[in-house]
Amino acid sequence: MNRTISLITDFGDKDGYSGIMKGVILSINPDVNIVDITHQIMPQDIFQAAFVLNYSYPYFPEGTIHVVVVDPGVGGQRSIIALKTPTSFFVGPDNGVFTLILEQEKNISGVYLENRKLFLPKVSQTFHGRDIMAPIAGHLSLGVPITELGSALKPEKIKRISLPGVESSVTGQVTGSVISIDRFGNLITNINEKMLKTFLKPFDPDRLKIYAGNLCITGLSSSYDSVNKGEPLAIMGSHGMVEISVCCASAQSCFSMDKGEIVKVEKY
Amino acid sequence: MNRTISLITDFGDKDGYSGIMKGVILSINPDVNIVDITHQIMPQDIFQAAFVLNYSYPYFPEGTIHVVVVDPGVGGQRSIIALKTPTSFFVGPDNGVFTLILEQEKNISGVYLENRKLFLPKVSQTFHGRDIMAPIAGHLSLGVPITELGSALKPEKIKRISLPGVESSVTGQVTGSVISIDRFGNLITNINEKMLKTFLKPFDPDRLKIYAGNLCITGLSSSYDSVNKGEPLAIMGSHGMVEISVCCASAQSCFSMDKGEIVKVEKY
Amino acid sequence: MNRTISLITDFGDKDGYSGIMKGVILSINPDVNIVDITHQIMPQDIFQAAFVLNYSYPYFPEGTIHVVVVDPGVGGQRSIIALKTPTSFFVGPDNGVFTLILEQEKNISGVYLENRKLFLPKVSQTFHGRDIMAPIAGHLSLGVPITELGSALKPEKIKRISLPGVESSVTGQVTGSVISIDRFGNLITNINEKMLKTFLKPFDPDRLKIYAGNLCITGLSSSYDSVNKGEPLAIMGSHGMVEISVCCASAQSCFSMDKGEIVKVEKY
Repeated sequence: MNRTISLITDFGDKDGYSGIMKGVILSINPDVNIVDITHQIMPQDIFQAAFVLNYSYPYFPEGTIHVVVVDPGVGGQRSIIALKTPTSFFVGPDNGVFTLILEQEKNISGVYLENRKLFLPKVSQTFHGRDIMAPIAGHLSLGVPITELGSALKPEKIKRISLPGVESSVTGQVTGSVISIDRFGNLITNINEKMLKTFLKPFDPDRLKIYAGNLCITGLSSSYDSVNKGEPLAIMGSHGMVEISVCCASAQSCFSMDKGEIVKVEKY
Repeated sequence: MNRTISLITDFGDKDGYSGIMKGVILSINPDVNIVDITHQIMPQDIFQAAFVLNYSYPYFPEGTIHVVVVDPGVGGQRSIIALKTPTSFFVGPDNGVFTLILEQEKNISGVYLENRKLFLPKVSQTFHGRDIMAPIAGHLSLGVPITELGSALKPEKIKRISLPGVESSVTGQVTGSVISIDRFGNLITNINEKMLKTFLKPFDPDRLKIYAGNLCITGLSSSYDSVNKGEPLAIMGSHGMVEISVCCASAQSCFSMDKGEIVKVEKY
Repeated sequence: MNRTISLITDFGDKDGYSGIMKGVILSINPDVNIVDITHQIMPQDIFQAAFVLNYSYPYFPEGTIHVVVVDPGVGGQRSIIALKTPTSFFVGPDNGVFTLILEQEKNISGVYLENRKLFLPKVSQTFHGRDIMAPIAGHLSLGVPITELGSALKPEKIKRISLPGVESSVTGQVTGSVISIDRFGNLITNINEKMLKTFLKPFDPDRLKIYAGNLCITGLSSSYDSVNKGEPLAIMGSHGMVEISVCCASAQSCFSMDKGEIVKVEKY
């Protein structure tokens, strides 16, 4: 069995910390596939890690072990946990990085990572990604059952972070915000298609107005280049969320908008 | 058969988009080797993608599938295509990213990607790298013949971008320009050895003068450290192109030169 | 045998140079695992490469081949060498990148890379990572013995760089400096636990004072969050060195300290 382990961290790429984790994993299971999702989560940005994990994990092979090391509390009181769903495993600190997984998945079992025989022999105070999470992921990839990692943890006990608010009214509008900005400067909101369909039946993307700052965009476009270069558009993006974009440019720069900007979608 | 898939994109490294493509590929073929060439193409810089691809692909194993996702027209009218040469496969949008491959390779067959059974079940409007190109690359790596992907496409119908001009005269000079600048600040031109050999027989690297801005460099050096620290030199670089460099420093910063700077090479 | 090759370079991530090296390696051995430690060594920073290698290599599988391409003298007089220790192989230019390996390991055999049959057929003047080091690493990963690479090289002949000084007195203090700063802004010194234990028996982390600039920190903490947010602390870091940190922030920014800053640890 050729398992996959994915990595999401805030380690950046200059210090070799993610490479070291891979060395640890391959020492335990040389046949595993290791995939970097990203190491560029802003230091300690737990929400961003949770969000990237949430839109990435459905695209990985069944049985993939997703390791998330955004861990400002390393060495302190926080626990480290592993979760198992029907399709995936998750390993990371119990600090809220799995909030969106918990919202999404019904059938979750969890454990505390306690079985020190599966850690590196020496555990540092500052790098549990290397000393605990990487070796645990390696052992999981070899088929060690999650129950051997430590005592059971009820999903309702797992720490959740509060999420950016989004309010939809059946009478015809949703108010959310920009929750992420990608490399292209696309402004990704927390407003999804399901919310729009609650007040717009039959669903018609042309009958929507999208407001943000001074912007008012009419209708959802079907591609980034369906408007002229430099013009704004709104689109249902690949994360399944409404996105505000500019053809061939960065919406973030063009409109000086940042995370947290309020976005409203109305029918008309 | 342990095939290789290479990736060139403008996705950057913070959003996880290239990791998601790898998840899709490994879901189809868990035994493939996936290599990042780069994800730091400047957003929508089709020429840079074409150039990096051109100097990278000859170094990959026979049968490698090179996937290029620099795709400002995603979701719009542009086609997505696959090419096959005697040594390699190429997958990407039909927007000019394969211009230099078409110049280089004689024996090319092409197809449009049309066989939706080989795409992800749900195709988004904004991320065809994930929904179409990654799964197609995965299937190619399993040995699916290119003819199963869609209808044939004649090489002469494939879109080409115009390339930075380079003019050589048999009487003794070549005029080109800086077309790329690498991490070290080396200024890479579009002037290759073959051009110099047309007017300098027998070829003698000492009998050349290289002009750019206020710089005049005599002769091609045989190594970056053949001059003193901080001094300029010209050298036949690893891309097979004349490069302007500074020993232990960045030529780009030292001379405030950028892409597009005119470079002339003369015999004397 | 599923060998691992690790890569440390100053290539950055935009030019595809590390991807090309992987193409070369996989052309020779498609079954090898290739791990990026980092490609973000500052151009030509040999000490940083030596330091990262030193704290990374112990975590890799036995038999791993560590390739270090920080090579300002490429194409010039410097040799390229390979080293073998009981657990690992090392390949790189003879410019000091292996200084810390030589300090650490007792049982080393070395060779010059001279066997051109194991290089790429055409060797450029500017990219020996691609043309020499990558193919040599590929061949080593197939089990080619180090003695076939070229003539023997005595460890005492290998070039060493001078290291940032650290002085410890048995009467109760150590003076070193900040030698590295990680992505989180943690200031990593060259003062290790062994040095502290020479003057503090029994060792008691609470009985130390750490001085740097205007800072005076009492005691070594057991985790980054053992102080309040924004407050400074000192800790025995994952590299085995004393580190100066700030809870949930960058010590580098908070105290405007840089590499070279003098750090003193005293018992009291």
